[in-house]
Amino acid sequence: MKTSLDFLLAAKRCEIDGLQRLAFTAHLVDVTARLVHGLQRERGLTNLYLGSQGKRFAEARLEQLVASRQVEAEWRAQFERLDAGAAQAGHGARLFSRIACVLQGLDGLEPLRRQLCEGGWDTARATEAYVRLIAALLAVVFEAADSATDPEVSRQLVALFNLMQGKEFAGQERAAGAALFARGQADASEQQRLLHLIESQERCLEVFDAFAPPETRALLSAPHASNTLAELERLRRVVCTAAHGAPLQPERSQTWFDVCSARMDAMKTVEDRLTADLRGTCEHKIEHAQAELERFGAFAEQATPDPLVFYLAPAHAPASAPPGAAQGFGLPIERSVLELVHDQARRLQAMGDELEAARASLNERRLIERAKGLLMAHRQLSEAEAHKTLRQMAMNQNRRIVDVAEALLAMAAVLPPR
Amino acid sequence: MKTSLDFLLAAKRCEIDGLQRLAFTAHLVDVTARLVHGLQRERGLTNLYLGSQGKRFAEARLEQLVASRQVEAEWRAQFERLDAGAAQAGHGARLFSRIACVLQGLDGLEPLRRQLCEGGWDTARATEAYVRLIAALLAVVFEAADSATDPEVSRQLVALFNLMQGKEFAGQERAAGAALFARGQADASEQQRLLHLIESQERCLEVFDAFAPPETRALLSAPHASNTLAELERLRRVVCTAAHGAPLQPERSQTWFDVCSARMDAMKTVEDRLTADLRGTCEHKIEHAQAELERFGAFAEQATPDPLVFYLAPAHAPASAPPGAAQGFGLPIERSVLELVHDQARRLQAMGDELEAARASLNERRLIERAKGLLMAHRQLSEAEAHKTLRQMAMNQNRRIVDVAEALLAMAAVLPPR
Repeated sequence: MKTSLDFLLAAKRCEIDGLQRLAFTAHLVDVTARLVHGLQRERGLTNLYLGSQGKRFAEARLEQLVASRQVEAEWRAQFERLDAGAAQAGHGARLFSRIACVLQGLDGLEPLRRQLCEGGWDTARATEAYVRLIAALLAVVFEAADSATDPEVSRQLVALFNLMQGKEFAGQERAAGAALFARGQADASEQQRLLHLIESQERCLEVFDAFAPPETRALLSAPHASNTLAELERLRRVVCTAAHGAPLQPERSQTWFDVCSARMDAMKTVEDRLTADLRGTCEHKIEHAQAELERFGAFAEQATPDPLVFYLAPAHAPASAPPGAAQGFGLPIERSVLELVHDQARRLQAMGDELEAARASLNERRLIERAKGLLMAHRQLSEAEAHKTLRQMAMNQNRRIVDVAEALLAMAAVLPPR
Repeated sequence: MKTSLDFLLAAKRCEIDGLQRLAFTAHLVDVTARLVHGLQRERGLTNLYLGSQGKRFAEARLEQLVASRQVEAEWRAQFERLDAGAAQAGHGARLFSRIACVLQGLDGLEPLRRQLCEGGWDTARATEAYVRLIAALLAVVFEAADSATDPEVSRQLVALFNLMQGKEFAGQERAAGAALFARGQADASEQQRLLHLIESQERCLEVFDAFAPPETRALLSAPHASNTLAELERLRRVVCTAAHGAPLQPERSQTWFDVCSARMDAMKTVEDRLTADLRGTCEHKIEHAQAELERFGAFAEQATPDPLVFYLAPAHAPASAPPGAAQGFGLPIERSVLELVHDQARRLQAMGDELEAARASLNERRLIERAKGLLMAHRQLSEAEAHKTLRQMAMNQNRRIVDVAEALLAMAAVLPPR
């Protein structure tokens, strides 16, 4: 017959399982971040190559293709190892469904690369194709972040996801800005799009700031990164404030591209640090949990305390009492299994609450994205327009964007399908 | 090499795993509901027995003890079968930790029963002991509800948990009211406690009402149940409106007890219906998901569509399009794996959103309970007083109780431990 202690040990083992799953997730996220980075570089070089009518950047692009293919192979190998049985039911289904989507994109990647060169696609269309694949990869990271069972790991994953998403907006900004400079003339709607990308990027970095560990946050504002950002802000001002139809210097396209790339590389450094932190956190927590498991196991040897202790212990020990500070409930027994049980329950409860808090930011994002998708599909809006509409509604109603998004989705649920 | 379809199938299998886990959870919840009901009857009869100074109800109590022991054995056997490996990491740890707590109580139950008779405990103390054990059992149901991965099952579990918790408040109301009548004199603080139990009960039944299927809800307002409730309300008025110190008719104690018991039995009927519904829902969903799994598997045979379809399909298909309405994305291919992938992702997304909505009510409850626990521990308040304090704060600040609870917990986190 299983005892109370058996279940206490089982609870601890569950925790360890969850952490080991997270440690593996950290590897998946790491290789995904590297694949995204490779594809972002490939997208940039492909745009430069297509923009020069195939006269320049051919070699650099080919080199990047080799690098991209290598990371893709690594990505496939890493996800091949993902065990369906080891995943959590709800999150597992979502994660696998996202991976299935990425594989659809990866399977079409080589044909896409040929098509881009031979099919005469322009830079806008090429950008759009890469944007789609990268979005599918980011959705995998999103689900990984949402599946975390440990609040600290969850916060790091939320920070990482937002950094990656911010970096992707930076990549799209790079493409949009380079195209604007190259065209040689300011265009109001393109400028609007650029501003939207900058704003989206900043929103992501704000969430990153709220969730990342301080040392990692500091990396992004290091002197080197700050200089790059200052230069970028100057160029942003030039390209965004030019009157519609006013001339832009096409030769600045390359400068813009280089500064944006430097900014993205700085972000990648922070990303690498975060993924390393993530792995470290998981390892550290697994070690700690395993030590606790052993400590709990030692209780098995001890004598049974007063069997009535469950009914006699005070109902509400102060929640803020440190777990180690065993007052023995004032009963003449040693630290009992019951105390372990209560400590454990309290700790798991607090962890659950923290976890919900970290997940709240993911839920908000989910709601906003779904509301945007709804507007895009039903009103034929672009992503930027859909976002602007939501923001405008929020301002008019003096509510948060997420509340407007929620109301919109609730409304859509009762409206008949088109 | 695993394909996109493999991961799609893996996602479906994850869903099925989750549903099978829920089907087993439905059995755990069912036996827990029966054990709670047995202990509630035992508590009631023990109170009558102790209240009569051991002169009456001895036989009825002994009969109930036999019945309780039998359900306890069933409960232990059912939970013995719970496999640590099959549980979900985060929720699993919390669930196991709750079970460990229940076992502490069950292990002390026989000593408690002896102590109650031989140790000269009064009815208040006896009630308190059973309340504690039942609370531990309800916590198991709460975690089970919180771990559901399917929104419909989750809603049913939320309804069931709230019904069970409401019934437990009804049981405490029965004990408190019977004691008041038996004492023969109204007592303001006991009346206050009674009102608090009635209010808590109604709050639970409101949540039950919001989440239970309509047919089940109707059961609780059936003519038979309504008559009982009307009689109960009359007695509630009598006992709650009597002036402090005014006489109460002790002979009404038995009537009160019987009416309360009838009300609890009516609730148990609804409970039984809900647990049966729950099992049915799980079975039905498993069947459906398995049929879909087979349908997906048939795709493996089909020819590969245009590899570029991922990049060419419209980005945002209307989210409200019925999953079956395959327009082939306007491409000259049959319903492709990509469409399956998109449909699946959309469906899982919608399920995740619904799930969060159902869980929100559990989270609110969690916050309020924790805030109450904090007030009880730090200010030495009773549960009723802590609840009143929270409610008063909410009224004064014109905020919802849950928001006040959240603010209180946030504050406690930054205050130094005592």
